[in-house]
Amino acid sequence: MSPSRPSGDAPRGYIIPIGGAEEKIHDPAILKRFAKLCGGREARIAIIPTASLASDTGRRYESLFDDLGVAHAEALPLESRNDCEQPEALEALEQATGVFLTGGNQLRLATHLGGTPIAKAIRLMNAAGVHVAGTSAGAAFLSEHMIAFGEEGASPRAGSVTLSPGLGLTNRVVIDQHFRQRDRLGRLLTALAYNPFAVGLGLDEDTAAFIGPDETIEILGSGAVTIVDPSEIEFSSMDQATRDEPVCLLGVKLHILIRGAAFNLHTRVASPGTVATTKG
Amino acid sequence: MSPSRPSGDAPRGYIIPIGGAEEKIHDPAILKRFAKLCGGREARIAIIPTASLASDTGRRYESLFDDLGVAHAEALPLESRNDCEQPEALEALEQATGVFLTGGNQLRLATHLGGTPIAKAIRLMNAAGVHVAGTSAGAAFLSEHMIAFGEEGASPRAGSVTLSPGLGLTNRVVIDQHFRQRDRLGRLLTALAYNPFAVGLGLDEDTAAFIGPDETIEILGSGAVTIVDPSEIEFSSMDQATRDEPVCLLGVKLHILIRGAAFNLHTRVASPGTVATTKG
Repeated sequence: MSPSRPSGDAPRGYIIPIGGAEEKIHDPAILKRFAKLCGGREARIAIIPTASLASDTGRRYESLFDDLGVAHAEALPLESRNDCEQPEALEALEQATGVFLTGGNQLRLATHLGGTPIAKAIRLMNAAGVHVAGTSAGAAFLSEHMIAFGEEGASPRAGSVTLSPGLGLTNRVVIDQHFRQRDRLGRLLTALAYNPFAVGLGLDEDTAAFIGPDETIEILGSGAVTIVDPSEIEFSSMDQATRDEPVCLLGVKLHILIRGAAFNLHTRVASPGTVATTKG
Repeated sequence: MSPSRPSGDAPRGYIIPIGGAEEKIHDPAILKRFAKLCGGREARIAIIPTASLASDTGRRYESLFDDLGVAHAEALPLESRNDCEQPEALEALEQATGVFLTGGNQLRLATHLGGTPIAKAIRLMNAAGVHVAGTSAGAAFLSEHMIAFGEEGASPRAGSVTLSPGLGLTNRVVIDQHFRQRDRLGRLLTALAYNPFAVGLGLDEDTAAFIGPDETIEILGSGAVTIVDPSEIEFSSMDQATRDEPVCLLGVKLHILIRGAAFNLHTRVASPGTVATTKG
């Protein structure tokens, strides 16, 4: 389940994890940018509310995207693996120019969608240029390696996080959400310490990382995205630590990005972007 | 109020911030190491319980150090600035080979001891080789720049931390305690972002940083010490951020040290120390 390769010359679509609790009414900057990327008035957005147990989550996002002028926003009622096998659902999905996964529990997404034609279609569509956003649980699910659940705390502990295969749109990042609000640096560091090839994205609420086809991440929203780059780690005791023991990690790099700043997943270079020029 | 210079050729004493809630009964490794440094059975430890509002805090530590075989452990009843002006208190303090500051509220330490002969004496004694430890509030107070109070949260926000002058044994570190337990990375990053010359020490509970006279920090205890090295920060938006806004910080270095690992404040080099050899 490695990331789908772009088909032909079309660049892949944006991958857009959102930290949860995105502003929906007064200044819905994140949802607006997503809708615009997907074609604005011409956009067709497929909403996947599977993570949520609330029955009106899909309808709520339909009406939010309606309010933003999107021509066609439709929630797909994917409540079981069987639902994800139905040709009608697949047909509705495949007309979309954008896919939006709501919040809830990421394990509901993984257990219901994982390995079904719906999951495969989203991967192929993203590779072919369709943009895929997810908020909270929907954000966690986007990457190949998903944080299923874990403990709170600022420092890493062996066993404090449980990983699961995710949707797999990219394997370059491990995503955590509600980052500032729920004290999750320790579990993100623990996840990265297993194998420091990926970059950690700690997304505050109402904050999104727009991961472009060129692997540049741009930040939007009112909070911060904490980039945890473990590629220069000089020492890790993860292989020796027993359960609940603290983990020694030397040489982690941290960037805190706010709206306007950028990070390139390929070069691992952070840039203040417009933060340096638009303020002061 | 810059750090006191060592007098003559004597190396300064250890500076030992402890993250609070250190183990006192079953395996009091931190208190034991401190007592040993101060002379073991020959040690004379002056306990300063000023941070605490509980009336038995001083007596409690007297009895803990007694149990560890320390010949003489005495709590100094410094409950007001006037108490800190009394010659008898100063005389009792100056016989000590080690000074221990208990937990409580670090602003009680700063407001009661700051600028008094007692504070001055501790600085001179440390410079002349006397070891000074502090737990929780007592740890925060040790450095020149003290975190007086602040907000929880993993990412930095302008105004989320309030600094105050501390005891000033060193200006090389800014100390935060209960680090893993109280979600304090954001406020520590905010404190360092004001002026990235100092190194941040985020101390988990039951974990101590023994800062030796050669500026090498060794870790003891059951948790981790998160070293936040801001010296390579490439960009900060701190000067432009308005209150409660997230702060953009690019290029922060993070080391998570556990028992046996070390960090040199002078060279800024982290080392796994005995972690690499004693485990596995």
